[in-house]
Amino acid sequence: MTPEEFRKAGHALIDWIADYREDIPNQPVRAQVQPGEVRRSFPVEAPQTADSFAKLLTDLETRVVPGITQVQHPMHYGWFPSNASLSSVLGDIASSGLGTLGISWESCPALTEVEEVVCDWMRQLTGLSDQWKGTIHDTASTACVTAMILAREKASDLSKNSTGLQAVAVPLVVYSTSQAHSSIAKAVQLAGFGQDNLRYIDEDPYTRAMLPEALADAIRNDLAHGRIPAAIVCSVGATGTTAMDPVAEIAAIANEHNIWLHVDAAMAGSAMLLPEARHLWEGVEAADSLAWNPHKWMGTILDTALFYVCDTAHLERVMSTNPAYLQSSADGEVTQYRDWGIPLGRRFRALKLWFHLHLDGIDAIQARLRRDLANAQWFQKQVEAAQHWQVLAPVLLQTICIVHIPQDADGQPLTGEALDAHTLDWVGRINESGQAFLSPSVLDGRWMVRVSIGVEGTTREHVQKVWELLQASV
Amino acid sequence: MTPEEFRKAGHALIDWIADYREDIPNQPVRAQVQPGEVRRSFPVEAPQTADSFAKLLTDLETRVVPGITQVQHPMHYGWFPSNASLSSVLGDIASSGLGTLGISWESCPALTEVEEVVCDWMRQLTGLSDQWKGTIHDTASTACVTAMILAREKASDLSKNSTGLQAVAVPLVVYSTSQAHSSIAKAVQLAGFGQDNLRYIDEDPYTRAMLPEALADAIRNDLAHGRIPAAIVCSVGATGTTAMDPVAEIAAIANEHNIWLHVDAAMAGSAMLLPEARHLWEGVEAADSLAWNPHKWMGTILDTALFYVCDTAHLERVMSTNPAYLQSSADGEVTQYRDWGIPLGRRFRALKLWFHLHLDGIDAIQARLRRDLANAQWFQKQVEAAQHWQVLAPVLLQTICIVHIPQDADGQPLTGEALDAHTLDWVGRINESGQAFLSPSVLDGRWMVRVSIGVEGTTREHVQKVWELLQASV
Repeated sequence: MTPEEFRKAGHALIDWIADYREDIPNQPVRAQVQPGEVRRSFPVEAPQTADSFAKLLTDLETRVVPGITQVQHPMHYGWFPSNASLSSVLGDIASSGLGTLGISWESCPALTEVEEVVCDWMRQLTGLSDQWKGTIHDTASTACVTAMILAREKASDLSKNSTGLQAVAVPLVVYSTSQAHSSIAKAVQLAGFGQDNLRYIDEDPYTRAMLPEALADAIRNDLAHGRIPAAIVCSVGATGTTAMDPVAEIAAIANEHNIWLHVDAAMAGSAMLLPEARHLWEGVEAADSLAWNPHKWMGTILDTALFYVCDTAHLERVMSTNPAYLQSSADGEVTQYRDWGIPLGRRFRALKLWFHLHLDGIDAIQARLRRDLANAQWFQKQVEAAQHWQVLAPVLLQTICIVHIPQDADGQPLTGEALDAHTLDWVGRINESGQAFLSPSVLDGRWMVRVSIGVEGTTREHVQKVWELLQASV
Repeated sequence: MTPEEFRKAGHALIDWIADYREDIPNQPVRAQVQPGEVRRSFPVEAPQTADSFAKLLTDLETRVVPGITQVQHPMHYGWFPSNASLSSVLGDIASSGLGTLGISWESCPALTEVEEVVCDWMRQLTGLSDQWKGTIHDTASTACVTAMILAREKASDLSKNSTGLQAVAVPLVVYSTSQAHSSIAKAVQLAGFGQDNLRYIDEDPYTRAMLPEALADAIRNDLAHGRIPAAIVCSVGATGTTAMDPVAEIAAIANEHNIWLHVDAAMAGSAMLLPEARHLWEGVEAADSLAWNPHKWMGTILDTALFYVCDTAHLERVMSTNPAYLQSSADGEVTQYRDWGIPLGRRFRALKLWFHLHLDGIDAIQARLRRDLANAQWFQKQVEAAQHWQVLAPVLLQTICIVHIPQDADGQPLTGEALDAHTLDWVGRINESGQAFLSPSVLDGRWMVRVSIGVEGTTREHVQKVWELLQASV
């Protein structure tokens, strides 16, 4: 395709996207397709010859769009917000259009250095000290795998350079809680520790925060049995209820025993753009690594996960490769991001953050986050004031965990499996209707419903609307 | 940013990109900036308030563009081709514009099912049987880490579910050659095997292909010492010289001992779009996993790495997570790509391949690959016919490894460090000039130069021009 053909098709595509985004509120929130329906709408065999852009746009419209769950819809309250602000989309378009290659500083100096600049901007904007150096990963999952490998290599004296984890004489242990995101257990397993060496530390029964004294006990017990505490993963805004582990107290224990402390703030990192929220990760300066996703609530489009460490020398010792074909005269003077993560080749992701910050401005982003926090407070009050409804966990950010408990035929509150069936029934009907989307989840062995506010387009009016919908559905 | 503001800025950006792409042949190939120059052109502090799109485009032009090494330049012969065809860029733009979230089938059924469709199209187009199921990873590096973890878990009976690699009684061993990409050793280390358990098997001194009898010997020796052969990584188009390990013979050995065989065809996978090239990976059907990068020679923009396995049940056992908040009624009927790799969240990458295939057509892509192979043959002939020039390895694809050996003052051919200095001098001058870019690399302990043909815009005329430039530079 020539630049002129691209220009013509590109203009048509921009118009199509603008129209599409404008129309999202008129679409069902959850895709209404059945399993296999989208796949079957495509030819089984690959196209042999080229076809027109107009035909492609039609196919996009008719085959793909019906299969999209609209996470940008103002009535989307599922999982966590996954905003894809149009200002950051422009940065992504610029990145694609430039067609750069990041495999070394030399292969695109600007790609490396703009990433350094924006990671440092984000560090400042979240109140972190300049001991932290950042890079952009695809997701917090990948950042956590990296952190677990960094911890493993610290605890095993760089076993990767010799006989590996398999020759380490005593078990290495990782500590977290049952509230931690599923990617934490996955990272522990992928890094080779084994699930049996992941300890779920007791939590406070209401806040679901890790109990530091229980952590200290578990570490003492492992040490007494000759095991090596290697890593602690501290959740700041855990997925179920946005639980916040007490970072300062945990960091004190980690530092006492020289244990790698990884802070998973995938969700709550966005809140740290607000000075008034930073008490939620007080103590973070004493951690070893830290990840959060601007591609969630803040709204820089996927995939934009920030990963910060203090000890970049250790990071590079663990992740570096230096083949002859990637060496250049700039080596030693520049950052080689290939040595800061798993992939060699990287996209120019920094443009997404640069465009987002430049075009929206941090003032507006902060105002939106504060709007969402206020909406969550309002929603919490409504639920608490309503008969038969309960809020199940502290509302520390913008997610409210709720349950509706009606009375049975004997005038007793519904419990157990009957309550589960009721919950899954009403939330299922709402989700199927396409009017709104909420994530059912499990807390203390029972189904509940998460109302996660924070889509860019969600105003107080939409929050009122979903509350009315909930009340009408039970 | 509203859809209408996006529309306006988007049109300006499309025009900017079209102009930029048109102008690439007039730019220096290698960026002419010094370390830190791009970084210092940015403010130290993050922008507080929003600024205009016009200002941003100016900054992009003046601060970023000078820091880009132009891998889309027709005189770029460095590393491997990293084509970013404009048809696939449109797919990337559509992906960004849609703003979808891939964390489960339910979160975007189309994202999952179009990925299934295009991975199957690519399977057919490379002549693979339908035992292979594919997914899109960011890079072949990540695919290799995944493959090494799959191998580790197969050889250790899913040790991740219990006490981990650290409790496996006997060492697990991986086999490859010194020609394998740097990401292979990195993957072996990250997966916890340890560098001492990676065996570099002897290669043919000219073709640099793994010697199967040497592999069989090494395996026998490890077995005799009570070690467990866990994985073999077979390179199809290794980075230095595009060496091709004999897949069929290696697969026979792997299957005899039930060893996981991963085929790294990151570069040569594109060639498999040509039926006449498929003899180069004959035997691939007997492998366990396979990765290649459409984002290289084929030209679907980064990040588009295909990863195929046969045993998806094993893949899912190793990589799966199933937290309550991601469960839905479609579970069991649909593919959950989060269980096929490391990250949970994924972009709608399949659109890049769909747009590329639809808008360019496989006929035109094949014609371009054949053009490049013919150009490489032509270039090889020129070098072989010229005095003092040598071709150092078989030209199996589109990369030619060359050296220029002048005579010293005594009429003897230059050798050793003097030859290295000469090589690095002439290639350094070319690269610094910005007229062309070539990758110096090391072969048998001596510097040589790789001429890797295959940029979308590189015609015979450009190849003639670089050959003239080379001759004039020595």
